[in-house]
Amino acid sequence: MHQIHRVAIVGGNHGNELTGVYLVKKFQQYPHLISRSSFHTLALLGNLQAIAQVKRYIEKDSNRCFHLQELEKPLDNIYENMRAREIQQILQPPTSEPVDVIIDLHSTTANMGLTMILGNTHPFLVHLAAHISSQNSLVKIYIHQRHSATGFLRSLSELGFAIEVGSVAQGVLDAELFWQTEQLISEILDYIENFNQGKITPVEDYLIYYQFLQVVDYPRNDQGEIAAMIHPQLQSRDYQPLKPGASMFVTFTGVDILYTGQSITYPIFINEAAYYEKQIAMYLTEKQQIKL
Amino acid sequence: MHQIHRVAIVGGNHGNELTGVYLVKKFQQYPHLISRSSFHTLALLGNLQAIAQVKRYIEKDSNRCFHLQELEKPLDNIYENMRAREIQQILQPPTSEPVDVIIDLHSTTANMGLTMILGNTHPFLVHLAAHISSQNSLVKIYIHQRHSATGFLRSLSELGFAIEVGSVAQGVLDAELFWQTEQLISEILDYIENFNQGKITPVEDYLIYYQFLQVVDYPRNDQGEIAAMIHPQLQSRDYQPLKPGASMFVTFTGVDILYTGQSITYPIFINEAAYYEKQIAMYLTEKQQIKL
Repeated sequence: MHQIHRVAIVGGNHGNELTGVYLVKKFQQYPHLISRSSFHTLALLGNLQAIAQVKRYIEKDSNRCFHLQELEKPLDNIYENMRAREIQQILQPPTSEPVDVIIDLHSTTANMGLTMILGNTHPFLVHLAAHISSQNSLVKIYIHQRHSATGFLRSLSELGFAIEVGSVAQGVLDAELFWQTEQLISEILDYIENFNQGKITPVEDYLIYYQFLQVVDYPRNDQGEIAAMIHPQLQSRDYQPLKPGASMFVTFTGVDILYTGQSITYPIFINEAAYYEKQIAMYLTEKQQIKL
Repeated sequence: MHQIHRVAIVGGNHGNELTGVYLVKKFQQYPHLISRSSFHTLALLGNLQAIAQVKRYIEKDSNRCFHLQELEKPLDNIYENMRAREIQQILQPPTSEPVDVIIDLHSTTANMGLTMILGNTHPFLVHLAAHISSQNSLVKIYIHQRHSATGFLRSLSELGFAIEVGSVAQGVLDAELFWQTEQLISEILDYIENFNQGKITPVEDYLIYYQFLQVVDYPRNDQGEIAAMIHPQLQSRDYQPLKPGASMFVTFTGVDILYTGQSITYPIFINEAAYYEKQIAMYLTEKQQIKL
C-alpha cells in the first residue's frame, strides 16, 4: 500500500458534541500536537453554524450529507448541504492530493467509552484497529459496513473512520474523556508515522470487533410516541452481552419488555439522545474476530 | 395556615428535560396517581413547542418569562412570552381559585440526585422539605431566595418549588430517575394530604439545606470562549465539600485552576449543559440548618 500523505481530524460535524469541537480548536492553536514528520495533518471544524449554536445541526444532520450523488446535485439553500461541499473541497481539493485518512470526532450519551468506528475492513484500518485496541484497553472497535449508503463525512475517504466517545451529555465537556480522546488521536498519528516509516511490526494475531447487526427502536404508541424507556438493567451496559429473555425496555407503568432474539447480542449506542428522532434505541451487534 | 386546595405539577418547562415531560404525560393518562381526597391536582405540560422539538426553548428560556411586570406588558411575538401568559391563566384563572402549590419538574446534566429547590423559607415549605428529606435519603434541599427577580414559573405561587433531578443528558430518559422522581412526587402529595387532614406530627428538629452563595463562570479567553473544563476531581461531586486550594477547573493544556475561596463550599449544578450559555459553571452554596 502507498504511504499516507494527508490526514484530516474533524470535530463538530455535530455542533453539540463538544469533545471534538474543543480538541480541534486545541489542535488548531497548537499544531505541533498533531504534526508528524512523514505526513501532513489538518484539523478542521465541521458544522460551523451548529457549533456556534451548540446544536447537533441547523436544518439537517451534517453527517448524512456526504452521498456522492447528493454532493453533485445543484446546490439548495440548506446550510449543511453548502457546508458539505466546502468540506469536500477542503478534503478533496480539485487541484491537489485528497486526504488519505479522515478521523471524524463524535461523542455520545451512550456509555461507549472510546470506540473506533470503521466503515470497511481495509487491511490498513484492520491493522491500525488491532494495534490501537491491543495497546489501549479503553478502545473498542465497531464495524458498520454501510458507508456509501449513509452519507457520513468519513465516507469521503476509504480510510475514513470515526471516534465515538461517551457517555457525555450533549453540550458538555468531560475532562477525562477529552484527555483520553486526545491520547487516542496521538496513538493513531504515531501508528501512521510508523507505518509510513516501515516500522510496523505486527504482533497481534486477531482483531476483536463488534459488527453491526440491526437497529432496535423504542416501543411506540399509536401516535408514534415512545412508550417505554431503556431498562435500568440495560442502561449504560454498551458492549456487554445481552441474553435472550433479558430485560430491554420498561414501560412507563413498569412492565418489562424482553429481548426476544435467539442469540446473545452486544448492544451499543444505548439511549443516545440524538437517536430518539431517528427511531433508534440501540444498535445490536455481534462480537467477531478477524485473523490478521 | 389555610388548606391546600389546588396543586399543579408542571413538566417540560424546558422541552428537552424528558423526565418531567413523560411524568406529566403519564399523570395525564393515569390521573388517579396524583389524585388525593383533600385537594385537586393538575398535571400540565409547559413549553409545548419546545417539547415537540425536544429543545430547551424556542426563542427564550421559558423559565425566565414569569416576572409579573413582564406578564403585564403588551404581548409580543415570542412564543415563550405567549405561552407564559397561557400558563398564568391556567394556574391563576381570573374567575376561580389560583393554584396554591406549583411543583415544577426539571432535570440536569449535573449529578444532583433528587433536589427540591425552594425560593423562600415559608414554614409550610420548610416543614415539607424537612419531612421529605428525612424520609427519603436521595433528596437534597437547595434554597435560592431570588424568586421574584428571576421570572421562574414556580414564582407564580408563594408555595412553588422545583424538583431538579440528575445527572441525565438532555433529550434522554433515565428509567431509574423517572421512578425516583415519581416516588418523590407521590411522597409530596401524601404530605399535603396529611397536612390538609391535620395528620402532620413534626418529628424532625432541623432542616439541613444548601443555601445559594454565588455563581462561578468558566475561565474564558479574550473572545469569551471557555478556556477550561470542570476538573475531573470536581466533576459529578455536587453537594460534596470543596476546600480552599482544591482543583476546580483544568485548562485544555492541562493546567489546574484552584478554588481560591476562604471557606469550604458545596458546589451544585456542576457542568450543567444549559448553563454554558448563561456563563455558569456551577453554583457555590453553603450548608445550613434551620431549627424547626
